[in-house]
Amino acid sequence: MRRSRAFIPTTKEAPSDATLPSHQFLVRGGFINQQGSGLYNFLPLGKIVLEKIRAIVKEELDKAGCNEVQLSFITPMSLWQRSGRSQTMGKEMLRIKDRHENSFVLSPTNEEAIVELVKNRVTSYKDLPINLYQINTKFRDEARPRYGLLRGREFLMKDGYSFHASEDDMIREFHLMQDTYKKIFTRLGLDFRVVEADSGAIGGSGSREFHVLADSGEDTLVVCESCEYGANIETLYEDEKKIEELKERSYEDLQTQDLDDRCSCGAKLSFKKGIEVGHIFQLGTKYSKALEANFNDENGRAKAFEMATFGIGVSRLVAAVIEQNHDKDGCVWTKSTTPYMVNILVSNIKDDEQVKLGEDLYSKLLDSSVEVILDDRKERFGFKMKDAELIGFVYTIIIGKELSNGIVEIYDRKTKVKTSVEASNVFAKIMELI
Amino acid sequence: MRRSRAFIPTTKEAPSDATLPSHQFLVRGGFINQQGSGLYNFLPLGKIVLEKIRAIVKEELDKAGCNEVQLSFITPMSLWQRSGRSQTMGKEMLRIKDRHENSFVLSPTNEEAIVELVKNRVTSYKDLPINLYQINTKFRDEARPRYGLLRGREFLMKDGYSFHASEDDMIREFHLMQDTYKKIFTRLGLDFRVVEADSGAIGGSGSREFHVLADSGEDTLVVCESCEYGANIETLYEDEKKIEELKERSYEDLQTQDLDDRCSCGAKLSFKKGIEVGHIFQLGTKYSKALEANFNDENGRAKAFEMATFGIGVSRLVAAVIEQNHDKDGCVWTKSTTPYMVNILVSNIKDDEQVKLGEDLYSKLLDSSVEVILDDRKERFGFKMKDAELIGFVYTIIIGKELSNGIVEIYDRKTKVKTSVEASNVFAKIMELI
Repeated sequence: MRRSRAFIPTTKEAPSDATLPSHQFLVRGGFINQQGSGLYNFLPLGKIVLEKIRAIVKEELDKAGCNEVQLSFITPMSLWQRSGRSQTMGKEMLRIKDRHENSFVLSPTNEEAIVELVKNRVTSYKDLPINLYQINTKFRDEARPRYGLLRGREFLMKDGYSFHASEDDMIREFHLMQDTYKKIFTRLGLDFRVVEADSGAIGGSGSREFHVLADSGEDTLVVCESCEYGANIETLYEDEKKIEELKERSYEDLQTQDLDDRCSCGAKLSFKKGIEVGHIFQLGTKYSKALEANFNDENGRAKAFEMATFGIGVSRLVAAVIEQNHDKDGCVWTKSTTPYMVNILVSNIKDDEQVKLGEDLYSKLLDSSVEVILDDRKERFGFKMKDAELIGFVYTIIIGKELSNGIVEIYDRKTKVKTSVEASNVFAKIMELI
Repeated sequence: MRRSRAFIPTTKEAPSDATLPSHQFLVRGGFINQQGSGLYNFLPLGKIVLEKIRAIVKEELDKAGCNEVQLSFITPMSLWQRSGRSQTMGKEMLRIKDRHENSFVLSPTNEEAIVELVKNRVTSYKDLPINLYQINTKFRDEARPRYGLLRGREFLMKDGYSFHASEDDMIREFHLMQDTYKKIFTRLGLDFRVVEADSGAIGGSGSREFHVLADSGEDTLVVCESCEYGANIETLYEDEKKIEELKERSYEDLQTQDLDDRCSCGAKLSFKKGIEVGHIFQLGTKYSKALEANFNDENGRAKAFEMATFGIGVSRLVAAVIEQNHDKDGCVWTKSTTPYMVNILVSNIKDDEQVKLGEDLYSKLLDSSVEVILDDRKERFGFKMKDAELIGFVYTIIIGKELSNGIVEIYDRKTKVKTSVEASNVFAKIMELI
């Protein structure tokens, strides 16, 4: 992509209500903009990041044997009446009426729709297990949407649902999905923890949350400093007052707090803040019983499907990456989430030699299928460099005055280190790094 | 994909209201199912086809220099009030209220949102032209949703919008998009026509429709039998009664009708039926003026953006492919839209030799990145073959009794011809064909 032809409206001004770094930098970097309260547009850079995350989620789920579907976003109210959730779900579930005064719901989740889909279409234990997922728009009418993509109303979610002939098989799939989720968050380059969780309103027993560790996280976690153990304080402690007191303390403050308890592995435990980006539940037969969804077992007897459900906040992850990876100057994307891996910054667009090298590198990197953007704008070096830092491309090749001595620089956004490289060698060097 | 692990609920029963082949076969083949009136779920096979079409649309648009975005589906009513369309658009535009009684719209199209996005972010002629598009959910509250995916209420649409400093440049982009759309429909393997069109409710002058030719099409076209010329009868004739009379006649009936007029190229004209799958408009300054979206020209004077808009019915195309390509037994997918290119049908799952060849071919084709499905179900040959015809995979490798003589068959869904091939040669042969 040529920067001069791209729509990347960076700006110095953050929205007045943007208290979190991801909210500020994603808007300032031209990734997203607010369309209305809790409603966001993804601009070209934001859309690229979103699609990269979506692709990784899809790849790992497909490898694990899941089948992708796409359920309608508008769902008939009758679905929600049959399960009883038309009564139990609050105002977050937005009810609407069509031109004929029929009632519908903007899907906040899709257990009912998926059970109705599988019911009568999967009738024998021989056809089980199946695991269906979608990566699709959801809407939850939050009372106070805030924090940009972290607590929006319209968002992109991966929701998966599995169907089994036995509880054992459901638990096997639960663990397979736990491993698959770990692969996904590892590939995204995130520092995360899998924690024991309160299963909350979805119901059922057995539940794990996946948290991206970040100072600004809404959730407070207790994690082991040695092994994989972690728990949400809301599950760990019974004392409501203690939970409230801990939730109100800042990340810095919590770091000074010693935990008396030790992990079962013997190591020290400490407090962390986390952003929930995934949640997996063992649902059991809650929805299959409510919706009378049965299959025939080996003996020809009708039994309700054992189910589990698996969620990932896909658009939320765009923000979570930045909450964990940023500095005062802007975004620091991981290699698997960066909108472009290499930014070629031509310092002086009137210098023919600089332009020629920029164009050469641009063609060669494109030919090598590297995600590259050429900053060919008629702007000052400082302005372009600030833009590169704000947006957070992993590497920027700076083609500047030193080119007359055959030297260019490779700037590493994360470390902020500039390394001088011979111009003749820069292509090989960048191919090594990426 | 192994058929035994896939969720492909084929059925003999078509919905009672399904009058069109695409509606019948897409439901019967396990591609889609109805969630509610005009609301469809895409099951795994339908989702694969949808994503293949989406990918081709995206690839060609990106090559032509367009930038992908994703606008929020729920849009504030204030947007539509500013353009005046809150008054002029009818009941197809569904208005909803959130928990705070604020008014929103389920986006039926997105001219307003895109103009608001570009306004104040693109301020100089130097930043023009830009062409932004999205492939996103739309909702139109049709009074009588019907014909499956062809006239649904929730659907997937590609909507693109371009911004220019002059009318000339807008017209240049209009022609570029016309060429790009031709590439897209050609790559999809469709027989289509670009026709002069009535610009209807969107406004502006200069408009082309892209029609997939199919006996069941809703639109009646006059097309040249030699050159590229085509026109929608609604644009071509002024006599309303003549138009109505022609619209009511069936495809077969229209074929008997001689047209006195000749094309400007001299060749004969004839009537065809078409399904509209794309539409491009020269909008001019209609929306930019209404929403006061200006840029500064070379002389520093504020001018309203010249705009054009470009739509493709992405989910509609899934049905259009089948309206044009089917027979009495089911779907006949084109090579670029088939859910799987090769179906390996193991006739007798208890025959070790058949199973072994099936598994070998499956691995080798997967390793060669061929989209392949292995029908490893414990079902009779006839049942599996009927399924293959209904679904419409381009090729089916039939591994049957003749394998004991070293022979298998390749079945071509389109021609229905079975060709005997030596088992040792079938991999090479199929790689040649695809």
